[in-house]
Amino acid sequence: MTPAAPTDTPQARRLTIAEVRLTPILVADPPLLNTQGVHQPYTPRLIVEVVTEGGVTGIGETYGDTKYLELARPLAEKLLGTGVTDLNRLFALAHEVAVDASRVENSVDVGGLRGVQTADKLRLSVISGFEVACLDAWGKATGLPVHALLGGKVRERVEYSAYLFYRWARHPQGAGGQSDDWGAATDPPGVVAQAERFADTYGFSSFKLKGGVFEPEQEIAAIRALAARFPGQPLRLDPNGAWSVATSRYVAGELREVLEYLEDPTSGTGQMAEVAAVAGVPLATNMCVTTFGEIREAFTKNAVQVVLSDHHYWGGLRNTRELAAMCRTFGVGLSMHSNTHLGISLAAMTHVAATVPNLDYACDSHYPWQAEDIITERLTFRDGRLDVTDTPGLGVELDHDKLAPLHQRWLDDDGTMRDRDDAAAMRLAVPGWTTPAIPRW
Amino acid sequence: MTPAAPTDTPQARRLTIAEVRLTPILVADPPLLNTQGVHQPYTPRLIVEVVTEGGVTGIGETYGDTKYLELARPLAEKLLGTGVTDLNRLFALAHEVAVDASRVENSVDVGGLRGVQTADKLRLSVISGFEVACLDAWGKATGLPVHALLGGKVRERVEYSAYLFYRWARHPQGAGGQSDDWGAATDPPGVVAQAERFADTYGFSSFKLKGGVFEPEQEIAAIRALAARFPGQPLRLDPNGAWSVATSRYVAGELREVLEYLEDPTSGTGQMAEVAAVAGVPLATNMCVTTFGEIREAFTKNAVQVVLSDHHYWGGLRNTRELAAMCRTFGVGLSMHSNTHLGISLAAMTHVAATVPNLDYACDSHYPWQAEDIITERLTFRDGRLDVTDTPGLGVELDHDKLAPLHQRWLDDDGTMRDRDDAAAMRLAVPGWTTPAIPRW
Repeated sequence: MTPAAPTDTPQARRLTIAEVRLTPILVADPPLLNTQGVHQPYTPRLIVEVVTEGGVTGIGETYGDTKYLELARPLAEKLLGTGVTDLNRLFALAHEVAVDASRVENSVDVGGLRGVQTADKLRLSVISGFEVACLDAWGKATGLPVHALLGGKVRERVEYSAYLFYRWARHPQGAGGQSDDWGAATDPPGVVAQAERFADTYGFSSFKLKGGVFEPEQEIAAIRALAARFPGQPLRLDPNGAWSVATSRYVAGELREVLEYLEDPTSGTGQMAEVAAVAGVPLATNMCVTTFGEIREAFTKNAVQVVLSDHHYWGGLRNTRELAAMCRTFGVGLSMHSNTHLGISLAAMTHVAATVPNLDYACDSHYPWQAEDIITERLTFRDGRLDVTDTPGLGVELDHDKLAPLHQRWLDDDGTMRDRDDAAAMRLAVPGWTTPAIPRW
Repeated sequence: MTPAAPTDTPQARRLTIAEVRLTPILVADPPLLNTQGVHQPYTPRLIVEVVTEGGVTGIGETYGDTKYLELARPLAEKLLGTGVTDLNRLFALAHEVAVDASRVENSVDVGGLRGVQTADKLRLSVISGFEVACLDAWGKATGLPVHALLGGKVRERVEYSAYLFYRWARHPQGAGGQSDDWGAATDPPGVVAQAERFADTYGFSSFKLKGGVFEPEQEIAAIRALAARFPGQPLRLDPNGAWSVATSRYVAGELREVLEYLEDPTSGTGQMAEVAAVAGVPLATNMCVTTFGEIREAFTKNAVQVVLSDHHYWGGLRNTRELAAMCRTFGVGLSMHSNTHLGISLAAMTHVAATVPNLDYACDSHYPWQAEDIITERLTFRDGRLDVTDTPGLGVELDHDKLAPLHQRWLDDDGTMRDRDDAAAMRLAVPGWTTPAIPRW
């Protein structure tokens, strides 16, 4: 299909994209553990600025690994002369950009634990950064918050969950990076102490533990310790597909009384369905349903009971709303997934979450782990929630003074951090470490 | 859920709804035949005007039968003070309005052949009129066409299909109404002559015949006559669920070489699935999948291969886009259904159709049958297509001089035409006629 011509009215011309700026950065990240390894000291993100003929700048944020940048640069060229309202066309434009198949096809993303990768999925993640920037510019230009451009908020505040991680006190020797005062959390008491700090500082009342790091018995013990400390509060466990069907069924049986949901205990829709059939607790996923193409099989097999949406994966805020409509239609629960991100994406997540009636669970966010940000004023959780702003656009502003040193860090990097690699980081502490085969247990 | 407060920015305040005007009208309609009877000389429609604090008026159109008016009036009151961008809230607001269950629950709509009716479905049809009016106002106020508010057009023109009807030359004696120069079409040559006029006048190249009127053999003959006259062009037949599974399978077998799709040969998802299993031709529906609640069963049973969307049924243009996304995701084709409508709805249909990438078939429209309209300038099909306008809003204007006499007709009506009743109209020609039981053949 030939993309249609841009809308041609005086206002639409003011909304035409005159310039697109792409700024890759490296953001400090704590030594958070997962089944593949540990977060590197710095993680790549891409900051998108879209400037209209009318002089309005909209901002977006997405993954910043090299393979995303290689796609983002030619797509940015194609956007020049189109309108910030021409969002349906983004998909056709992105399809015109070639993707180096060897980088992505059918490989599991090393660091991101983002499910099976395809060129289309890569395109959607890049599109999301541009879509959010376009919505921000459109909203600023017409005096409307992004949630209004999505049909308006149905709630005033959006609830988030504490995202607990097994972690070390500091990065391995030689890895570089910053330290923080969170200390280590490698056993049940450490996890509980981390949860207490999250609850005290941010008011979170639900808790998700990133699992798949230790043997299942230890992670079961950690969840039980959380349940004892926070009786009746929603708890979640996510081993990123590290377990066999048998192990998954065993853990589900042990924890079904205390878990709100069990996330990706095992890999693949078929195995998830085998677990779901007897789990006795809802199974959530951000690994086996991460694209529209994976929905049909998963929903018809009843393999998952909760989909964790992520506007980066799914191609933007408008696609996220379409995913929400499908979950509503098929009786599948909806929550929101997070990878390491900054304030632009958190604002975007909050806007779209505010518009979805069937947001059934508190959203995930890594944001509290990020000490650095590139917006003028950090977003603040109160009672575990973020207020939904009515400020035009996203309601956050890019701070170029904060952006510049993070971009300089990216420029200065010798290549070790530009592509997230949790296994490489792990090797500094555990020589010879490679990404574990799954099922790991 | 408590609906959220309206967005509070200066622009949003200008977009706040200050007044809603509802104008029921009766529109002249030709004596078109279907399986339940014949169109009455006049059919009810409801024209919606939404006026913002900023002084912009948006227009919408939906069904105008009494049961819709009874819901539209209290909903209009609730809209005052909300914003034209607050579209997600329309559903919660409509739910606050009580529906007289005795009028709708589980009854098949008499005249509309609109599938099983529920209070929710009634609400969605009313919402659609308000949603379109809000989008029109929002677009006009910000200089953007409605398609831009839906993410932008992906095509410059939208293709429509000729909608052929068995019909009489004039309404039965005593029915009143106007006459036209189309003459009768009650046999294959009459159908072919009608199709030729549609092709010559409007350039349509695909043809749909409303069936279920005569015995299947005669309708098979009509389709074969069309196939002989227009070889290789897309043909469709829609008996509105009048046939048994056995008859449906028989007709499918007879016509599978010449039909683009067979629409609602039989009633209900279960029977449609039985036909679909052996039909050898795609089955389309606007009867067994008319709400989100009906999708899961139909899609998992593979009961339908094409859904005919209708923004009135589905609750507006944005919900229509969500339906389109589901069809895309589940590999189900998409086209567009039509009941008797005027230029406002045709403009709305064209805007949303322009934004949907997977519009797989030419859309239906009754519009050529409507000699009367309430917009300043009728929309014109060229080469069977409508241009997608970039004029702000819908791009059509209400003509109050045309509206007034149609409203006066509604005021003057003694009640016989205010609620569409195709069986009542039929009784004037066929004494004792009642809505036939299904399967009729």
